Amino acid sequence: MVRRPRIGITMGDPAGIGPEVIFKALRRLRSDRLSYTPIVIGDAAVMQTYAKKLVCPNPLRSIHSTDDIPLSSRSSCWLLNVPSIAFDARRIGAISADCGQAAYQYITAAIQLALDGQLDAIVTAPIHKEALQQAGVPYPGHTEIFADMTKTQNYCMMLSSELISCSLVTAHVGFTDVADLLSTHAILDVIRLSGAAMRRMRQREPKLLVCGLNPHAGEHGLFGQQEEERIIRPAVELAREEGWNIAGPVPPDTAFVPKQIQATDCHICMYHDQGLIPLKALAFDQAMNITLGLPIIRTSVDHGTAFDIAGQNVADSSSMEYAIRMACKLCE
Amino acid sequence: MVRRPRIGITMGDPAGIGPEVIFKALRRLRSDRLSYTPIVIGDAAVMQTYAKKLVCPNPLRSIHSTDDIPLSSRSSCWLLNVPSIAFDARRIGAISADCGQAAYQYITAAIQLALDGQLDAIVTAPIHKEALQQAGVPYPGHTEIFADMTKTQNYCMMLSSELISCSLVTAHVGFTDVADLLSTHAILDVIRLSGAAMRRMRQREPKLLVCGLNPHAGEHGLFGQQEEERIIRPAVELAREEGWNIAGPVPPDTAFVPKQIQATDCHICMYHDQGLIPLKALAFDQAMNITLGLPIIRTSVDHGTAFDIAGQNVADSSSMEYAIRMACKLCE
Repeated sequence: MVRRPRIGITMGDPAGIGPEVIFKALRRLRSDRLSYTPIVIGDAAVMQTYAKKLVCPNPLRSIHSTDDIPLSSRSSCWLLNVPSIAFDARRIGAISADCGQAAYQYITAAIQLALDGQLDAIVTAPIHKEALQQAGVPYPGHTEIFADMTKTQNYCMMLSSELISCSLVTAHVGFTDVADLLSTHAILDVIRLSGAAMRRMRQREPKLLVCGLNPHAGEHGLFGQQEEERIIRPAVELAREEGWNIAGPVPPDTAFVPKQIQATDCHICMYHDQGLIPLKALAFDQAMNITLGLPIIRTSVDHGTAFDIAGQNVADSSSMEYAIRMACKLCE
Repeated sequence: MVRRPRIGITMGDPAGIGPEVIFKALRRLRSDRLSYTPIVIGDAAVMQTYAKKLVCPNPLRSIHSTDDIPLSSRSSCWLLNVPSIAFDARRIGAISADCGQAAYQYITAAIQLALDGQLDAIVTAPIHKEALQQAGVPYPGHTEIFADMTKTQNYCMMLSSELISCSLVTAHVGFTDVADLLSTHAILDVIRLSGAAMRRMRQREPKLLVCGLNPHAGEHGLFGQQEEERIIRPAVELAREEGWNIAGPVPPDTAFVPKQIQATDCHICMYHDQGLIPLKALAFDQAMNITLGLPIIRTSVDHGTAFDIAGQNVADSSSMEYAIRMACKLCE
């Protein structure tokens, strides 16, 4: 009997919308006939608090080790219990150090399980940067925790939806630091990682597009420091020699017009907002976040903890569903 | 008898799609009951060449001076003839110096007429930067010609559609030059110009949104040089004191999500692609370009000469129609 892929789903910040979108996604994905075993990594008591508050059934069967899961498990949803905080419904929506600490523990537990071969992929629910900071966790976010624990140097962030996917050559850096961080080597790395991921997600040869940096892609050197000719075009040419189906450097403002969106599987973007602005404009709440280049598969929702609407049964679980679906596809 | 607003429409590069979108727009706007007198500034022979090539009626009545237009003119379309080139259908779609020179003459003629009070607004069809350059015209584009001939220092470019409008604090400059060009003063100017224009276009108090520069608007100083706190926020606060309904600085990637698009009349953008990427993604071919701050009203299409499809009767005239409609509204 072949083991179905085990997808670990970290619960995220206990006070955010993570628990709610996990419940909703697990319920809605039942009709998808996905062949997978979902294992939430979180706190059984917290999940139960939400089940009660949201008046929804709690399908999670609590376990203490993945060894407790029978190989024959087909329709069950599991919860690997990592109890660490005293939580009740009054704490929903509030930033706190112990919630930040708990969220961090779910992540490190999940990564360790994946490294030990107990999980085939990890899907992460949102955490809160300030809660993490208050807890003294020395990482700004998920990506850095994954990179560090898996000792990964070459990685990149991709946001992906059915309509549009964007990979970022630079991400959480200041606007004035972007140009100095671009190199032909870094761009080529992102092209390769993105192409390989899209091959698996789309299950065919993907069409890639690389954006320029300057308005009109520099208009033949009229604007900018010829970053397109010096840095970006050589990466595109090297990638083409490797066999990738790739266009660019394309003027950024024409890279996302309807015709290009249709013709492209993944946009390689030079900076955060070049990719995130069109992605959120065109596929808000429909995208997931994936870290490429890790030795383990990791996808994530593309939204935050949304403390302002937590516990109100109004959160949209589309992004979590898509993140789980894509994690399953990447396991194939 | 009140003179209806006279809208000058420059023909653009003779080899581009300007003539075609003018014919189409004039025809389609007939059902709009716009109260205006259209006056194309261009070449009668060129327009006739296109009428023949596209097999469409030519409604233009050629004149040599706006004095030739009777005050009682109601449904006529006029063409102020500026003959300067030998043109035939074989030249359609080709870059040339004399086409660049001719396009430049239409523009300067129109500006002079507007300065003399003979035109109430100017709508420009597309020109080609390289043709202009070949002709030795010392301007990169329309905006600079208008600014120079009208001796305007404070002006800005706004792209506007029914759904989304974006004003640019910096426009055609290199990516690495953007941050140095931002100042509280420059941003406040763009806010005021944009607010005043939107008041007339929407005929109510507009809602303005100012974008940040860095990812997540700097996330409380985590990324960037605190441009949001040092430069952008003071401009927003001064504008608010002046009575503008204004939000910001907003993280760029959340500024264009559907909810914000709906709630905002005009986005004030720090750089070209911050505004043009979402505008072209969401309102491709539906927007017009307007230069704010000039002593004369000037709107324009948001597309280029499209030499590749010129003369084929496939060009979309939506942008030209919208530019004419908005020019009429701005004359009210």
